[in-house]
Amino acid sequence: MTDLHRKLSLIVITDPSCGDGRSIVNVVRAALRGGAPSIQLRGKEQAAREQVELARALLAETRAAGALLWVNDRLDVALAAGADGVHLGQDDLPVEAARRIVPPGFLVGISAETPELARAAERGGADYVGTGPVFETGSKADAGAAIGFARIADVAAAVRIPVVGIGGIDAANAGDVVRAGAAGVAVISAVMRAADPEAATRALLRAADVPAED
Amino acid sequence: MTDLHRKLSLIVITDPSCGDGRSIVNVVRAALRGGAPSIQLRGKEQAAREQVELARALLAETRAAGALLWVNDRLDVALAAGADGVHLGQDDLPVEAARRIVPPGFLVGISAETPELARAAERGGADYVGTGPVFETGSKADAGAAIGFARIADVAAAVRIPVVGIGGIDAANAGDVVRAGAAGVAVISAVMRAADPEAATRALLRAADVPAED
Repeated sequence: MTDLHRKLSLIVITDPSCGDGRSIVNVVRAALRGGAPSIQLRGKEQAAREQVELARALLAETRAAGALLWVNDRLDVALAAGADGVHLGQDDLPVEAARRIVPPGFLVGISAETPELARAAERGGADYVGTGPVFETGSKADAGAAIGFARIADVAAAVRIPVVGIGGIDAANAGDVVRAGAAGVAVISAVMRAADPEAATRALLRAADVPAED
Repeated sequence: MTDLHRKLSLIVITDPSCGDGRSIVNVVRAALRGGAPSIQLRGKEQAAREQVELARALLAETRAAGALLWVNDRLDVALAAGADGVHLGQDDLPVEAARRIVPPGFLVGISAETPELARAAERGGADYVGTGPVFETGSKADAGAAIGFARIADVAAAVRIPVVGIGGIDAANAGDVVRAGAAGVAVISAVMRAADPEAATRALLRAADVPAED
């Protein structure tokens, strides 16, 4: 298991709807205390300048915790803030274009819901693929129909890079996603809206900690 | 007068609302035939991937015409497409952050509606500032109140980099904007919605062609 593989066992994705009286930075700090190895800033509704400021604040936290910071969609924000990587959807920059403009070692994750898209992402230089929605989800208005476990297995069999399951995942089903072939899981609500984000993170990590068979 | 100064005499900004049966590429081609020295892709409503494709299509046209291609807001799209520059608003990436991640020679324009913001943009490495809205405009929902000619003169006096007036400018008032101190004008509707974009571009260039006094 590579270090990146381990860092992808749990990606906590931020959401401005993180509960009354809580800030994204506070909730992320709790998730990092709980052991979250990756944080992804997802700020589609925010102006780029605000995203850069938030990314810089989160980066101070992730660096201190030895975790990775990813930025969703906005590669320019990720580069400006000095984040570790970007996560791009199929409507965002093509992976080949992103790879050409990032420095060596910068990480690129790509959403790929089919084996074909996953293979294309791998050929284009993706470091991992995010596959989903595994289950139905309320966090992402533009997510398609649930793809289920079998697709996770198909995608994982199609590529050598790690596959991360996303969409409707919580501590009760994260183990099944990993057993289906995922290197880890990405969650929004399961941490951002949890009453105790630190405990929720620990529970997810325990659930996703399935010994690899090979 | 530098070459950049000349290239900033007229910036034609794209708008998806460019008339029935017309495409952005068609209208830009007409503007380039009319002599437009700068085209700015403004695709706030479009996904990044679509913006990259459109930017590449426009770049083929601007290169052939010897004009510059700028991308509004999305520095990642500009870099991915190989555009000549980016135009950033005060809510977009800070100019200093943009400057750090772009290659040498890449151009950065900044919206600055006051002398203070213009000076800050110049210190941060901006190649020009866009100042407006000079007049009231219907093209940009988030534009503020009209600032008028006096502000153009104030901003132009505050910085050494070129100032480009924007907002409600057409062939009838472009000369006044340049006489107030602007190096040129940026327009959306005056070309994109013109019955004859090529003729509209020529008329704007004639109107903005005010001999420099120094």
